[in-house]
Amino acid sequence: MIPADQHLNIGSVIFDGMDQIDFTGPFEVLARIPNSTLHIGSKTLDPITDTRGLKILPEKTLEDMPKLDILHVPGGPGQEDLMEDEDYLSFIRTQAEGAKYVFSVCTGALICGAAGLLRGKRATTHWAAMEVLPYLGAIPLTDRVVIEGNYYFAGGVTSGIDGALKLAADIRGDDAAMQIQLYMQYHPEPPFDAGTPDRAPAEVVERSRNSVKELTARRIETAKRIASKLDLPYGGKA
Amino acid sequence: MIPADQHLNIGSVIFDGMDQIDFTGPFEVLARIPNSTLHIGSKTLDPITDTRGLKILPEKTLEDMPKLDILHVPGGPGQEDLMEDEDYLSFIRTQAEGAKYVFSVCTGALICGAAGLLRGKRATTHWAAMEVLPYLGAIPLTDRVVIEGNYYFAGGVTSGIDGALKLAADIRGDDAAMQIQLYMQYHPEPPFDAGTPDRAPAEVVERSRNSVKELTARRIETAKRIASKLDLPYGGKA
Repeated sequence: MIPADQHLNIGSVIFDGMDQIDFTGPFEVLARIPNSTLHIGSKTLDPITDTRGLKILPEKTLEDMPKLDILHVPGGPGQEDLMEDEDYLSFIRTQAEGAKYVFSVCTGALICGAAGLLRGKRATTHWAAMEVLPYLGAIPLTDRVVIEGNYYFAGGVTSGIDGALKLAADIRGDDAAMQIQLYMQYHPEPPFDAGTPDRAPAEVVERSRNSVKELTARRIETAKRIASKLDLPYGGKA
Repeated sequence: MIPADQHLNIGSVIFDGMDQIDFTGPFEVLARIPNSTLHIGSKTLDPITDTRGLKILPEKTLEDMPKLDILHVPGGPGQEDLMEDEDYLSFIRTQAEGAKYVFSVCTGALICGAAGLLRGKRATTHWAAMEVLPYLGAIPLTDRVVIEGNYYFAGGVTSGIDGALKLAADIRGDDAAMQIQLYMQYHPEPPFDAGTPDRAPAEVVERSRNSVKELTARRIETAKRIASKLDLPYGGKA
């Protein structure tokens, strides 16, 4: 809990190729945390285009972002570019150092890893990217939300909603988080029990794995390059 | 089910004061329906600003939207203005007439009602706006997703994700919908059982009801004006 009268600067980083709901899911929660301001930052002020084409406008360049109390890093296929973009990485590294909480969603964890922030940490990410985490020095867990010190890691895509509510509760108390959850009418009723690879029918999982095979291979290659640059243990062995 | 080789035009209407996740939740699903194109329309090409400040860019003006197979109408406090904006209403009325499916989320149902589309239909909306539905000729249900003929009504805010997955399944089959659900890692674990007024603690519900009291009163006034204009039964009696 953070004292209710202490104003919080929350900041989300958005970028091309992001999966929009890694950002918009948590936004729905974070933008309603009492006594806080949410800032949306990107490299430039141009609209970013999500992996399915949705265009969202940032409010600030990375340089113009204030010192953040909570840093939110979404993921999506565009995470690949950010993992080798020093402007984003140094922003994330610097902000994470001063932040009370760092919150990654989906493959946002890989970006944090590329910034050197995952060394020895238990973490999670999208199920299809789980095998990339060890290259970045992290210990992968399949929990939907992993809390490691002041780091909150949400798994794939919609996990960010659960992670953000958990974070809201830890920052402002259960009542504040429940009020946001009630407003959002977040009493999910998924039509299928197919939200994780161990639950979905085998043939659905196989088709999904095949469709992301190349992306996963690319992510591993990127992670290997970074691991050797950052001198991370697994990368050294690979 | 619609034959897999039949291309579908899906269209979302976005507007100022929308609750962004009424749109972005379903977007995550609808933009992944096989053999379809998702179009994002608004009155002008200017970015819209959601109720908490998020700016999203439309792709097309309403006039430039193609004939839609699926019409998606999100909600949010901004629905008030749309309910008396003939440009939006006539767009929705015309598209709904030719569409295979109409899909409203949250108070998007009230907009559909203002377009005269809810007469005698069972429908749902955000819990805080439920009492507005009868003024628009609808029979309110508290189900998370209500299917009435070719109309799909999702309840408040995050209900749109469940509604969109249900719709995806009915259009392209369970396997296609499960593949989207698996990609989204949609196996929700809400931190609290507080997503509906009958589940949240009484004091949380009371605070929430108080915070939307004025908005609800305004929505009822708007609905009454429209009911009398459209000569809807309840409005006549009120």
